[in-house]
Amino acid sequence: MSTVEVPVTRWPGGLVENDVIAAEEPLEIRVNGRSIAITMRTPGHDRELAAGFLLTEGIIQQPDDVRDILLCRDLPEAQAGNVVDALLAATVQVDLAKLTRHVFGSSSCGLCGKATLDAIFQNVAPISGGPQLTPAFLTSLPGRLRMSQPGFAITGGLHASALFSAAGELLVVREDVGRHNALDKVLGWAMLQNRLPLGGTILLVSGRVSFELVQKALIAGIPWIAGIGAPSSLAVECAARGAQTLVGFLKSNRFNLYTGRERLRD
Amino acid sequence: MSTVEVPVTRWPGGLVENDVIAAEEPLEIRVNGRSIAITMRTPGHDRELAAGFLLTEGIIQQPDDVRDILLCRDLPEAQAGNVVDALLAATVQVDLAKLTRHVFGSSSCGLCGKATLDAIFQNVAPISGGPQLTPAFLTSLPGRLRMSQPGFAITGGLHASALFSAAGELLVVREDVGRHNALDKVLGWAMLQNRLPLGGTILLVSGRVSFELVQKALIAGIPWIAGIGAPSSLAVECAARGAQTLVGFLKSNRFNLYTGRERLRD
Repeated sequence: MSTVEVPVTRWPGGLVENDVIAAEEPLEIRVNGRSIAITMRTPGHDRELAAGFLLTEGIIQQPDDVRDILLCRDLPEAQAGNVVDALLAATVQVDLAKLTRHVFGSSSCGLCGKATLDAIFQNVAPISGGPQLTPAFLTSLPGRLRMSQPGFAITGGLHASALFSAAGELLVVREDVGRHNALDKVLGWAMLQNRLPLGGTILLVSGRVSFELVQKALIAGIPWIAGIGAPSSLAVECAARGAQTLVGFLKSNRFNLYTGRERLRD
Repeated sequence: MSTVEVPVTRWPGGLVENDVIAAEEPLEIRVNGRSIAITMRTPGHDRELAAGFLLTEGIIQQPDDVRDILLCRDLPEAQAGNVVDALLAATVQVDLAKLTRHVFGSSSCGLCGKATLDAIFQNVAPISGGPQLTPAFLTSLPGRLRMSQPGFAITGGLHASALFSAAGELLVVREDVGRHNALDKVLGWAMLQNRLPLGGTILLVSGRVSFELVQKALIAGIPWIAGIGAPSSLAVECAARGAQTLVGFLKSNRFNLYTGRERLRD
């Protein structure tokens, strides 16, 4: 399934309705039975994804290099549908040193959404406390972020992450071509300033809210994460388990609240 | 520098002007002198980026875990400014098995834009030939992509990659939360259909054009890559070296052409 339905509180109005969001789950790619990579993807066309990944990583060059790409069955339920195995021709020399992306040496990293979340929450405690904020406060943030994105204003090509205090102070904003880098810069700033954990803050990101961003924010103890764009399914699931408040589609006059409604006040 | 100026042909008009685009260069992160990761980032705040990366990857937990983060000097010119070294406290046990992102075991992967490009073009030939296309053809593509994005229409949260023939036929479109996955699915489809190399096609991506997307398209022999959004500096550099035509900000009434103008006809 490439989409998932989740309950959402829509503002203005405050009604709880169902929202359809993009599915995000980890796909484990195996070569000749050996796990070589995990990528966070939207389920569907997984055999093509594996073929394209192996092609662009330089593992295979032509159709004859692949005997078959199998969707693995007989998996534990939590992994079902999330593992593919590429059986290569005997002539193909597999040079795993070429791999550049999300390569895992151990099996402890989690293969499915649930196992991934289990692994994270072994080391991360759900967030308690954190500020209560009003809709008016939230909808004031996008305009302030936009005014603090000089790189985006010039290029149209930079993501931003910003941290606000519960009093509305813009603490830090960082831009990067990579959304995870923009957030890492913000969290690194906080760490070097000895401000961790960030229990009194709200994080605003300029684009979509992926699982990776929610995970990073949880590690830093941030109770509120808001995005100008849409969240993914695993982002919502991770925020819910971390007792974090997740807001998507935050604009000057509206937003969707996906988790942690107890922190929203009138 | 977080931005770079490059010459661009703007349409309508056809004038060559300078455009300011987001800088993208690889940052090598070292721990106690040992290279542990490379991330494609926008230069600036690199010490914060390293601190945030090490924090969210679980390598460090608190400021005391870090003695210092150094910007490496005395590097070859090609790597200058693109290497940081985190010196950790003696008490920190470094568990590199925890790393999940862009981890390299060898030094052959390239540490800077130029070395990265050199490494790519050892295995990838610049593209010769490919169709000549008109501005009217190009500006017709975004509307057709949008009509072929059912997941985006519902969720607002999926990237898309689409392949068109030079005659304007939509060959394939794939959606994913990860832009690199959407492209891998398209290229895997082409490989499994025995259509590689894709010398007669144009690739359209729904968002920004990163280095990674240009690299993948070159490996598949695609002469045209167009994005609805902005390109990064390394994307433009890579396309130029690959003799690929790169179009950014493609809308129904305008675009910017960054490289390979010889394939644009009136």
